[in-house]
Amino acid sequence: MASTGTARGPYRTGIRRREQIVAVAVEVFGELGYAGGSIRTIADRVGVSHATLLQHFGSKEGLLTAVLEEWDRRAFENGLSDVSGLDYFRRLPQATTAASGNRGLQELFTTMAAEASSPTHPAHAFIQRRYANQFATLAAHLQRAVDAGDVAPLTADQINLEVRLVTAVLDGIGLQWLLDPSTDVTASAETYITRTIAAWGAGG
Amino acid sequence: MASTGTARGPYRTGIRRREQIVAVAVEVFGELGYAGGSIRTIADRVGVSHATLLQHFGSKEGLLTAVLEEWDRRAFENGLSDVSGLDYFRRLPQATTAASGNRGLQELFTTMAAEASSPTHPAHAFIQRRYANQFATLAAHLQRAVDAGDVAPLTADQINLEVRLVTAVLDGIGLQWLLDPSTDVTASAETYITRTIAAWGAGG
Repeated sequence: MASTGTARGPYRTGIRRREQIVAVAVEVFGELGYAGGSIRTIADRVGVSHATLLQHFGSKEGLLTAVLEEWDRRAFENGLSDVSGLDYFRRLPQATTAASGNRGLQELFTTMAAEASSPTHPAHAFIQRRYANQFATLAAHLQRAVDAGDVAPLTADQINLEVRLVTAVLDGIGLQWLLDPSTDVTASAETYITRTIAAWGAGG
Repeated sequence: MASTGTARGPYRTGIRRREQIVAVAVEVFGELGYAGGSIRTIADRVGVSHATLLQHFGSKEGLLTAVLEEWDRRAFENGLSDVSGLDYFRRLPQATTAASGNRGLQELFTTMAAEASSPTHPAHAFIQRRYANQFATLAAHLQRAVDAGDVAPLTADQINLEVRLVTAVLDGIGLQWLLDPSTDVTASAETYITRTIAAWGAGG
């Protein structure tokens, strides 16, 4: 977002307006759900017209995608952008906990991921792509750890299974945190990661 | 359900009708979601009146609860009713895979669990209770394994964390299976359980 600071006039206003709409959409979808949160409610809260909002996002589905991308971006910025290999996995508990700080986004993402498994859902393609990207990113970091000799060799199938398990644990803990905010997300995730890295070191 | 065989007349008809409505509700909620699946659609497919359906379940929320209870009952009957202690955990991958066989129920349950985190959701109390029961059941089996000397001693906090992790993995894998039916639920769950039991044996 460094370019925002140097942008001028209408362009900068457009970026700010877009960010503002996404922020409000996060709140509204978080409160009322995707089905219940209307474009009109979001436009009213931002103080723009329905037409202006659609000009930025094309449709309600486009806005949903922007909101879910914002969720991923925030999780990534929460300390994952400067680590690789095993350190990436070691940093996941902290990044997950920080992302959980936004209840609206966590609830929206978890609900969408479940609902969007239906091929007719507007967020289906986004969710499929998002999981594929997540698996590919984790697999690349695990492969890097193997190549560096930080963990014992793993086959492609084993790496695939490991990255799916890590993702499952983080998703499942996120769900428990939604249901019970006293859930210790960090402790759960750290226990899993520590134990898993130990198992990888011992030969996968 | 052994009593069904000996029940007579209207009582037996009532039980069968109830089971039939739940089965159709599973289909309809699975296809159209909870919001989209109306009581009228379900009643029409069963071939009963709206009034008859409400007579059995009181409300749409009552029907939803019956459907979610059916999901838990099926998972339990899929091989968990005759095992305890560590064997209960060893059997979980198989039971989870069998439960995943019903896509409609898996999708409904996963979506509901996420949506129902909101205190105003009709299934909120059911989902809270369902997770509390799940954690209590798993904790009792793990405590039994500790008492039998099958795993090293664990504090109450450690047991609480372990049962939440197991639940998170199974929920997360269920979600991945919804998004990608080629997901190997059994292999993922078995890897997790085997590794976890090894870690418990080594001192938690």
